[in-house]
Amino acid sequence: METQSTGARRGPKPRPHVRENLLRLGVKMLHEGGYTATGIKDIVDAAQVPKGSFYNYFENKEAFGKEAIDLYFESGLSKLRELLCDEKTAPLERLRNYFELRVRGFRSAGYVRGCLLGNFSLEVADHSPLIRDRLAVHFRTWSSLFESCIEQAQQTGAIRNRMPAALLAQFLLNSWEGALLRMRAEKSDVSLNQFIEVVFGSILV
Amino acid sequence: METQSTGARRGPKPRPHVRENLLRLGVKMLHEGGYTATGIKDIVDAAQVPKGSFYNYFENKEAFGKEAIDLYFESGLSKLRELLCDEKTAPLERLRNYFELRVRGFRSAGYVRGCLLGNFSLEVADHSPLIRDRLAVHFRTWSSLFESCIEQAQQTGAIRNRMPAALLAQFLLNSWEGALLRMRAEKSDVSLNQFIEVVFGSILV
Repeated sequence: METQSTGARRGPKPRPHVRENLLRLGVKMLHEGGYTATGIKDIVDAAQVPKGSFYNYFENKEAFGKEAIDLYFESGLSKLRELLCDEKTAPLERLRNYFELRVRGFRSAGYVRGCLLGNFSLEVADHSPLIRDRLAVHFRTWSSLFESCIEQAQQTGAIRNRMPAALLAQFLLNSWEGALLRMRAEKSDVSLNQFIEVVFGSILV
Repeated sequence: METQSTGARRGPKPRPHVRENLLRLGVKMLHEGGYTATGIKDIVDAAQVPKGSFYNYFENKEAFGKEAIDLYFESGLSKLRELLCDEKTAPLERLRNYFELRVRGFRSAGYVRGCLLGNFSLEVADHSPLIRDRLAVHFRTWSSLFESCIEQAQQTGAIRNRMPAALLAQFLLNSWEGALLRMRAEKSDVSLNQFIEVVFGSILV
């Protein structure tokens, strides 16, 4: 499907997969270059469609950014659910496995790009209520998955910390975003490993 | 001094305070608008000097960004030291006072802008080794101040957590950056208060 979409030629009419292809390429470019640095022209050029095509599908760049952040989060959501809701694994272990998997992913990627939700929170959220609202929604979905693992682990006694699971989950998510931020500045996995060490050694205990 | 500098008129020659004024305005604009969105032209226009003036003082935008991040961090450093090294206050209380003061500051500012070190870490660090190095240096200076409070509080027994003070300090700093990131998406102090609750209720205990 990727080859088919990328191979689309210039033409004035909306065609199947053009919207999907613009978004898929857009997510990649926004993730690599940032929101401001990625122009509509860059995206349509990468998709090999005329600029007018963009406006067949998206009102403006902000609306595109909103769709891009939705696609980014939703395309990772089934994997996230699979890992964090897997009842065959103990809830605390699921959480740890999830973070360790992500550390390996960022290590192979060379500690670049980080999390698009985090990037947009700092680069775009002050200036776009539309995108800010989507970020808030996705962050809540994400932390609710942490929360359910923490709650289960508290019930089984694997976590004795009696702070509310929702509070610990939100803290965990925000701290993870902070560890990713520091990873970008240091270009190393030190902050990610420190996150795992403190979270599983001092908080979820 | 501010009025004098802002009042500088256009002219081809380097003048006292021009460099300082460009940087001071640059920090403000980079903080409000972001690195990519702030052009050299925007900065010289705000300073009311011709574009050539910029190149009398800075090789390029990246070199300017490096100086801006240094100025940003260093202008807050004496206040940071004053709060965190104040021997009249117990070390754990100093840390808590520091974060509570910052929460009040972000609340009055309407939860925008956040921390320029964090913003540059996500927007610029992947693309500029020069700026990345400065971010890493400033983050280390900052966390060493946390570390010294934590170490002292461990010595007095105010913190029984025996994890290395350096590890806890780095985690604290990164988690704070993450809480600020989430603040930007939610436009509320919830993440900041959650940070304080978990840090002082479950980690520095």
